[in-house]
Amino acid sequence: MTTISVTDLHDRVTRIFTGAGLTPQNAASVATVIVNGERDHCKSHGIYRIEGCLRTVQAGLAVPDAQPELHDSGKAVIEVEAHGGFANPAFDHAKDALVARAKETGIAALVIRDCLHFSALWHEVELLAAEGLASLSMCPSYAFVAPAGGTEPLLGTNPMAFGYPRQGENPYVYDFATSVAARGEIELHRRAGTPLPKGWAVDKDGNPTTDPEAALDGAMLPFGGHKGSAISTMIELMAGAMLGERMSKEALEFTGANGTLLPRHGALVIAMDPAVFAARSGRDPIDEGERLLSAIGAQGARLPSQRRFEAREKSLAEGITLTDAEVAQLDRFEAQGLAALD
Amino acid sequence: MTTISVTDLHDRVTRIFTGAGLTPQNAASVATVIVNGERDHCKSHGIYRIEGCLRTVQAGLAVPDAQPELHDSGKAVIEVEAHGGFANPAFDHAKDALVARAKETGIAALVIRDCLHFSALWHEVELLAAEGLASLSMCPSYAFVAPAGGTEPLLGTNPMAFGYPRQGENPYVYDFATSVAARGEIELHRRAGTPLPKGWAVDKDGNPTTDPEAALDGAMLPFGGHKGSAISTMIELMAGAMLGERMSKEALEFTGANGTLLPRHGALVIAMDPAVFAARSGRDPIDEGERLLSAIGAQGARLPSQRRFEAREKSLAEGITLTDAEVAQLDRFEAQGLAALD
Repeated sequence: MTTISVTDLHDRVTRIFTGAGLTPQNAASVATVIVNGERDHCKSHGIYRIEGCLRTVQAGLAVPDAQPELHDSGKAVIEVEAHGGFANPAFDHAKDALVARAKETGIAALVIRDCLHFSALWHEVELLAAEGLASLSMCPSYAFVAPAGGTEPLLGTNPMAFGYPRQGENPYVYDFATSVAARGEIELHRRAGTPLPKGWAVDKDGNPTTDPEAALDGAMLPFGGHKGSAISTMIELMAGAMLGERMSKEALEFTGANGTLLPRHGALVIAMDPAVFAARSGRDPIDEGERLLSAIGAQGARLPSQRRFEAREKSLAEGITLTDAEVAQLDRFEAQGLAALD
Repeated sequence: MTTISVTDLHDRVTRIFTGAGLTPQNAASVATVIVNGERDHCKSHGIYRIEGCLRTVQAGLAVPDAQPELHDSGKAVIEVEAHGGFANPAFDHAKDALVARAKETGIAALVIRDCLHFSALWHEVELLAAEGLASLSMCPSYAFVAPAGGTEPLLGTNPMAFGYPRQGENPYVYDFATSVAARGEIELHRRAGTPLPKGWAVDKDGNPTTDPEAALDGAMLPFGGHKGSAISTMIELMAGAMLGERMSKEALEFTGANGTLLPRHGALVIAMDPAVFAARSGRDPIDEGERLLSAIGAQGARLPSQRRFEAREKSLAEGITLTDAEVAQLDRFEAQGLAALD
């Protein structure tokens, strides 16, 4: 085991990405979300993701030196073209414009076009909460999920995140897939030879299954039955169809790699300024939120992201601990670049 | 059994409400959502609701002759003061301004302040879909639901609805409570002496229960575990705290009637124009949506609201069939007004 500071890990990961052809700005931006995932003990979005990013660059499906391009209509919808690059530098490029617009108009939306979105969405809503804004973020992914009552994969695992600022506290943040489980969890059951919990998946004929092989051959299910399915469909419509960007089925067809590389599609972020929304009420919208959030905590219920914030505090104080295998992989990626993948 | 046309039922219900002191405009607006619920065989939002509305007027908690007042900042957030009246006339009063603003700015929000919101939210998102807009609508309610992992009621049943327009078809519409069941369903189990399905509720110590009495004394649970709980919390924040309007706990305290009268709080509607969002993509956002929605149907999966749209078609063609008891109640309300409640 090795312990490394958050800053040092960020430097290493940035070097790996510049070594793979990313511009310094793109590399730093992608490194930030990956290192933040690792920092928060959110391992599925940590350095584990580096290989997938590099493989997608190697396959020519991610544009490493893409320059995000802002299109600002001057109204409440702002767009940024990622031009086939990662979503993170595109978001970073447009963030200040989105924040300024939301503060001016009360509500504003950011459309990210043609991006690779592999990172947790909490990163975006936390950055906006730090500016005093509430926000919703969502995107399609790969079509591995059947609609409730259906038989074939058509919806993505379609994540959705929401952030709401708090005074002197980490913000209220949720971020989850609208599938009942992640595809990687089914893969883990397959490798371990253990059955899936009921309700995770259907086989290719649409029958409920606990067999991981049959599930991978069939379809995953949305969380929360028909309600979760309706929300997942909404995400396809709002962050796919409405933007004129690929939905999850087209994203899978576009990459043509059965989901082993990162999906390329659009993303939608809606930012709202509570100060504008509450202005005429005479109430403080952050204090009001606090009444609810502290009451949830007082019941002994955990707020979403609470474990992540605790891990963050520890990582910032004590550094991030990596296994020898993880360090060896970082060494390899840093020394050999994309050749390390062969 | 009696069959009555949608128009005739609307006339009767409007007369009942003018008889209870509502202005003709308020009465017609409230009658529309109630009759539309009945028309769509959505009995829980149909004429069954009349009594609750009248009782709230009788208790002095609904202002029958409230005049909705529009406050338009000229930016992307529009507000309407319901002044303690029903949400429906307030929404109707502000709808054209919201539609025009969303078409101009791409995204716009409507804040409804201090309203009684008893009706299904699908009514609002359908009206916006008919104008070519996608929309999200949400509001708090009464605090009867415990957060996931919690023990005490703190969240409302917090409904959320979404609409997306389709060409030549009824829109894509979902509308559901974020609690796993409606409070009325628990009451029905209590009366029938049948146990609740698992996962619906906890007793007052926070332990899972299938006993309806213990559930009514304890708390209902959100749908979809911690994910549904996170969404319900978001609705409290977005449609309560952020607007500076009552959240579900304060709404329950304000009415002070243990939830037997209608709750009074705010509501939030976000309208988006797909034509603006998709403009630079070169794709038609409605055609794109259709590819997904028709593929869901082709799998044999039902879209949300499909049963409702089928019932609507039948009601419009054949009229609405009411039981003798329902007709007798309408007669009583129409003849005696609020005195019929005693």
